Amino acid sequence: MSISMSSASLPVFAGMLSNLSHLLDKAQAFVDTKKCDPVAITQYRLAPDMLPFTKQIQIACDAAKNGIARLSGMEAPRFPDDEQTLAELKERIAKTLAYLQTVPAHAVDGTESKEITFPVGRDTMRTMQGEAYLKQWVLPNLFFHITTAYAILRHNGVDVGKKDYLLGAAA
Amino acid sequence: MSISMSSASLPVFAGMLSNLSHLLDKAQAFVDTKKCDPVAITQYRLAPDMLPFTKQIQIACDAAKNGIARLSGMEAPRFPDDEQTLAELKERIAKTLAYLQTVPAHAVDGTESKEITFPVGRDTMRTMQGEAYLKQWVLPNLFFHITTAYAILRHNGVDVGKKDYLLGAAA
Repeated sequence: MSISMSSASLPVFAGMLSNLSHLLDKAQAFVDTKKCDPVAITQYRLAPDMLPFTKQIQIACDAAKNGIARLSGMEAPRFPDDEQTLAELKERIAKTLAYLQTVPAHAVDGTESKEITFPVGRDTMRTMQGEAYLKQWVLPNLFFHITTAYAILRHNGVDVGKKDYLLGAAA
Repeated sequence: MSISMSSASLPVFAGMLSNLSHLLDKAQAFVDTKKCDPVAITQYRLAPDMLPFTKQIQIACDAAKNGIARLSGMEAPRFPDDEQTLAELKERIAKTLAYLQTVPAHAVDGTESKEITFPVGRDTMRTMQGEAYLKQWVLPNLFFHITTAYAILRHNGVDVGKKDYLLGAAA
């Protein structure tokens, strides 16, 4: 089988979001063991003007679901961004994974040259072709927010390692 | 053009390593402006048992060059991992980019099912097929170490933002 737009996106997104869900399990175990306020994790920022942990998870989910929705043309569910707890964040990931499973490979394949217009920030729209959008925008954003979530956990002493981040591949 | 093993790797690696080089320029400007010891950045770790900034850059380069070397069969240069300064780290990125430019697309294309055997840690070898190796191993590792380097800079107050991380795509 040759690599395709679907094989370069759907299983990668699903695998990394599953690993992210696993990282949240480790975060929950940390909170339970330390008996600490979970907000110490969920609202933690690596810099005062960086987004908190909760937002990193929300954006990682959105990068995956909106990326696939724009490539495939199959509308994605909208989430109100109201998650407060680690359990709620896990639920958001689960809903994102459920959406990804509804998108057949053929809906994403052949979209290399499809014009994708998407918002950047609050006031700007941008257009890229499908393959560039996947490689230069969606993947870098997805990995960015998952790795930043990992970094927040690691910085706070949660027992996670590279194997947890690469869980699916390392299995 | 359809997406291919070469188009899903070479320009993505080169683009992200170029952005990483740009992040190093911002780190250098920070050190020059603050007149601080550059070791405060180059040896910074987000957790005591995480790798320091210097190592994040070295591994990001290695993820790209060793990934392409294993897929293409075109031997990559070896670097002694002796970089101390931001300028030396920029040079390592430049040498990695120069190597990537010597690899023609056709050497990477068609490697979807090629058996790739590679070291994991010090004592373990692992085998994956080319496409899985690219998507589940090389890309997640490359983005992980670039994002971690970004997070270290951000955590230390260096003036970088998402636009710097996405520079090539945002241009």
